[in-house]
Amino acid sequence: MLYINGFIYFTGANFALTMVAATLCVMFAPTAAGPGIPEIKAYLNGVDTPNMFGASTLIVKIIGSIGAVSAGLDLGKEGPLVHIGACLASLLGQGGSDNYRLKWRWLRYLQNDRDRRDLITCGASSGVCAAFRAPVGGVLFALEEVASWWRSALLWRTFFSTAIVVVVLRGFMEYCDSGKCGLFGKGGLILFDVSSVSVTYHINDLLPVALIGIIGGVLGSLYNHLLHKVLRLYSLINEKGRTAKLLLSLGVSLLTSICLYLLPFLAPCTPCDPTLDAACPTVGRSGNFKRFNCPNGYYNDLASLLHATNDDAVRNIFSTGTPTEFRAISLLIFFAIYCILGLFTFGIAVPSGLFLPIILMGSAYGRLLALMMGSHIYIDQGLYAVLGAAALMSGSMRMTVSLCVIFLELTNNLLLLPIMMFVLLIAKTVGDAFNPSIYEIILDLKGLPFLEANPEPWMRNLTVGELAAAKPSVVSLGGIEKVVRVVEVLKSTKHNGFPVVDQGVPSPIGMPTGATELHGLVLRSHLVAVLRKKWFLKERRRTEEWEVREQFMSVDLAQKGPKIQEVVLTEDEMDMYIDLHPFTNTTPYTVVETMSVAKAVVLFRQVALRHLLIVPKYQGAGISPIVGILTRQDLIAHNILGAFPHLAKKEKSESTNS
Amino acid sequence: MLYINGFIYFTGANFALTMVAATLCVMFAPTAAGPGIPEIKAYLNGVDTPNMFGASTLIVKIIGSIGAVSAGLDLGKEGPLVHIGACLASLLGQGGSDNYRLKWRWLRYLQNDRDRRDLITCGASSGVCAAFRAPVGGVLFALEEVASWWRSALLWRTFFSTAIVVVVLRGFMEYCDSGKCGLFGKGGLILFDVSSVSVTYHINDLLPVALIGIIGGVLGSLYNHLLHKVLRLYSLINEKGRTAKLLLSLGVSLLTSICLYLLPFLAPCTPCDPTLDAACPTVGRSGNFKRFNCPNGYYNDLASLLHATNDDAVRNIFSTGTPTEFRAISLLIFFAIYCILGLFTFGIAVPSGLFLPIILMGSAYGRLLALMMGSHIYIDQGLYAVLGAAALMSGSMRMTVSLCVIFLELTNNLLLLPIMMFVLLIAKTVGDAFNPSIYEIILDLKGLPFLEANPEPWMRNLTVGELAAAKPSVVSLGGIEKVVRVVEVLKSTKHNGFPVVDQGVPSPIGMPTGATELHGLVLRSHLVAVLRKKWFLKERRRTEEWEVREQFMSVDLAQKGPKIQEVVLTEDEMDMYIDLHPFTNTTPYTVVETMSVAKAVVLFRQVALRHLLIVPKYQGAGISPIVGILTRQDLIAHNILGAFPHLAKKEKSESTNS
Repeated sequence: MLYINGFIYFTGANFALTMVAATLCVMFAPTAAGPGIPEIKAYLNGVDTPNMFGASTLIVKIIGSIGAVSAGLDLGKEGPLVHIGACLASLLGQGGSDNYRLKWRWLRYLQNDRDRRDLITCGASSGVCAAFRAPVGGVLFALEEVASWWRSALLWRTFFSTAIVVVVLRGFMEYCDSGKCGLFGKGGLILFDVSSVSVTYHINDLLPVALIGIIGGVLGSLYNHLLHKVLRLYSLINEKGRTAKLLLSLGVSLLTSICLYLLPFLAPCTPCDPTLDAACPTVGRSGNFKRFNCPNGYYNDLASLLHATNDDAVRNIFSTGTPTEFRAISLLIFFAIYCILGLFTFGIAVPSGLFLPIILMGSAYGRLLALMMGSHIYIDQGLYAVLGAAALMSGSMRMTVSLCVIFLELTNNLLLLPIMMFVLLIAKTVGDAFNPSIYEIILDLKGLPFLEANPEPWMRNLTVGELAAAKPSVVSLGGIEKVVRVVEVLKSTKHNGFPVVDQGVPSPIGMPTGATELHGLVLRSHLVAVLRKKWFLKERRRTEEWEVREQFMSVDLAQKGPKIQEVVLTEDEMDMYIDLHPFTNTTPYTVVETMSVAKAVVLFRQVALRHLLIVPKYQGAGISPIVGILTRQDLIAHNILGAFPHLAKKEKSESTNS
Repeated sequence: MLYINGFIYFTGANFALTMVAATLCVMFAPTAAGPGIPEIKAYLNGVDTPNMFGASTLIVKIIGSIGAVSAGLDLGKEGPLVHIGACLASLLGQGGSDNYRLKWRWLRYLQNDRDRRDLITCGASSGVCAAFRAPVGGVLFALEEVASWWRSALLWRTFFSTAIVVVVLRGFMEYCDSGKCGLFGKGGLILFDVSSVSVTYHINDLLPVALIGIIGGVLGSLYNHLLHKVLRLYSLINEKGRTAKLLLSLGVSLLTSICLYLLPFLAPCTPCDPTLDAACPTVGRSGNFKRFNCPNGYYNDLASLLHATNDDAVRNIFSTGTPTEFRAISLLIFFAIYCILGLFTFGIAVPSGLFLPIILMGSAYGRLLALMMGSHIYIDQGLYAVLGAAALMSGSMRMTVSLCVIFLELTNNLLLLPIMMFVLLIAKTVGDAFNPSIYEIILDLKGLPFLEANPEPWMRNLTVGELAAAKPSVVSLGGIEKVVRVVEVLKSTKHNGFPVVDQGVPSPIGMPTGATELHGLVLRSHLVAVLRKKWFLKERRRTEEWEVREQFMSVDLAQKGPKIQEVVLTEDEMDMYIDLHPFTNTTPYTVVETMSVAKAVVLFRQVALRHLLIVPKYQGAGISPIVGILTRQDLIAHNILGAFPHLAKKEKSESTNS
């Protein structure tokens, strides 16, 4: 009866908390679901997901994450914290939410794309730092996983922001030391301290450690594969509407509660080991030896793992100097149930992180392996659990240096470093042999046009001229253009940039008349702004600089304007002219049409472009100075292969031949 | 008498060892002198220093470094180890020294510039790792200080190489544990372990810690300034020939020996503190309490610092739990003498690193400050010494994250992390206010055309067209060119790349005849190779692909050929033709002449170019398809200001106005 009551309370509380988190997510901010790291990664690559960094997303993420984590779901707070950090940084960069803006003068310094990107990078690294209390790990995470472009200034800026996080965290802990803040700060600055054991290496440990790495790689890529399938299934369910999303989340919550509460009944009671210093059984809040359904002097090892917060479960499974604490069968059950829960929890409509579920799974198989090796190994079981967690993380996320540092900062045992590096590299290498990293899979699933750092090998066999020829021909504007033509072009195309070409320019010295001139590139948003301002000319003439200065502030052009459909013009206005010269970017990046796509991709990515103009290799009368224009979408491998299917075939036949 | 004998032995041994190191450096490999890090930095930026990574440099560096360090000079083995790592990597990439090459097939994969660069980056990080036993610190050092371009693949490659270093190091230590290898491996994997003290923070410590950072920044930049002066003085002396170089080194050695041996006589004897566990006085090899000239039961604190290897001196000054060990006056003397020695030792002709001298100076002032604060502070004096060392390093070298990690890995006290970050950031900020980092100063002194990541602000006001107009006009070649003209062009210019332009090309469909075509860029080395092969045509015609394949292997073009002056051609041959098309790079990067120099610099640097072609913005009959060509030298700020002095004036007047 006592157990039934307990079960009802447990399940009910979890259900209610999940309901809060999922309802918030579904109703107010669908973008707050999931970890948010892939979207941040895409944003820093140049792909903007709408409503990703807004104030509502931030609030829902914070409350939803608290709800989801305390509902006992198999998810972590790490991903959400990264997203929260990025949201805060973005709002700071905008000078507050759109509804509440600070003064313009102060904003000016941060309202450009680059500073916004830097701020979001700093926010993401601060998030990792706050999640793991790992300042250096946070910096490296931002460097290795999140950022697409990295400047040396960014290194110490992120470092500075994580330093602030640590100092603030430290300050709160100091303040809370006397128990004023409940459980906060109890863990100390080191979350999962295993520094008490000294690591002595023995040749016998080499094989099991390598094995942990290999298994980590295999399991990690398998996890990626299965998660991919589950996420595709979930996206079908989620398409059915908000109710379906909500029901899915609640279903997972019920499943989790049932598993977590009932499974420990399977485990037999273990007598306490009197040689250990630790209190046994622990009946208090958190502890290593949960009594649960056992008589006094006994403990239930599976309950120690399942009847605990995820953080405590990790702490218990990492515990060192307790070689007889867990039975193999309990660890196996724990591993299996967390594999299943991890796969099915990630895609539901609540803020969820991937780190902790993977750490739990990994530590279970690491400790299990150590237990099975028995007395053949010399390294403590707890350290094997740490290695297992690291290996599975590396096998799934394919990070190395940042994971290594995060785990060192989590566990505070520097002597673990060499084997940790060894395990991480093995797991990454094995995992890379099977499939891409989990974040790349999610990015692909979300259909975000992520621009990879390295071009595909077959891109060398295609020139940008050929690529441009396969596209609809480029729409260019004259330097002084009729309003009606500008409106037409804006309405009939979806391009965001148009080359500006002057025909028959007044002869420069020593040049025959009738030459054409590539003046530059004009953006759609600027054209719309000009149309809205109705800054038209009666005759076809070039304007002076002061005329423009009088009319336009740089703010006018920077603001997000309305769409072209919303601009209303009279017949008379349609017949007038616009001088596009003042609004044209006269220094666009260009490539000659003979350039290979591979090199164009490198240029596009390295210099972080949105538009790349293609100029002809020929020079002569009657040749257009512009051959085409390339955008991000044109350079995504998948899209190129759609237009040039023979390249894909060639690639395949080549790879089978070699 | 005993002391005089000791002095003679000490000075004599140091003198002899310095003689060996300096003679080797002066006679066989002048490039082996100094740390080598600036040159590695320049190489990875694209500036090749001759004989920097050869086998002779490597051997001299190894022997010379051993000599110089054991001669007790005030220099470290860290810089040389980085250089040794880079040399080994470079030789590995070449497949051995030039005199002893491996098989071609195996080499093929590493003989391109990019792989060579990657290998050298890995070598440099392995060097740092070996020097400090700091694998993650090594990776970050390569990232933050050494590399100009960074790819994510590089991150785990460097990580892999440092992992191997640690595993090998660990293996040797395990093997040497039983004392088989003398003193090797005695320090353990953690060089300067201070993990025994737990760090408790107190508000009182905030001010002294901040003070350490500020002093570190001020002293660091002052050190940079003075070192600059000393190096300029030394370069005057060194110009006088080999003997002057040798005498300078020997003079510094004498000065060092005299100071180190005689100064401890100034210090009074201190009675041993019986409450400490440590042996006191220590008469054995290394230890904290040197007896020297004191009676039994007493020790000489200055001798503990000066009569020790540099590593042991650091260990002694970092020692924790010994608040009464050193007197303030001894620390002051130590600090002063190491400042002087550090300044005068760095530029002499032996392999020398900057890290250890700065750590010694910094730790002295850190400990001194802690001593003076007395009981007002709560953090151990030894930790203050660590913070001082870190602050001075950051103040001089301006690194943050890598220094932070290196110091954590050196000292194994993760709880130090927050204040360490705090100190490093303060010192860097203060230092940056005064002058550039020490490596930048050295690069500037050596006159290496280092391409900075960020363009100067005034570069936005200059277009590449204007820059090209200030240069001698571009020399371009026809697609099929007379031999005599090619020889003439090669002899009369020093350019390394020539644009290839076809006149009156056979009309492409829909184009008027008489157009010119920019075919690409041909390199000087390839032209010379073709001339040497005498692959000439009797008539003016384009060759087929098979003709070229038959004649040329890609190896022929990749090899370093002779100079044009060494190619001898007959009159008949001079009248023949060369088809340059097969040797032309048809996909050079180009910019339109209206591009600002600032954007061109970004492109040049980001895509790592050697030549950048400028194409005209006009399109019409009779216009040359090429306006100019830009090289690294054209884009160095200093050189541009030479040609456009008004930009420098404007910059100055602007900065005084604002």
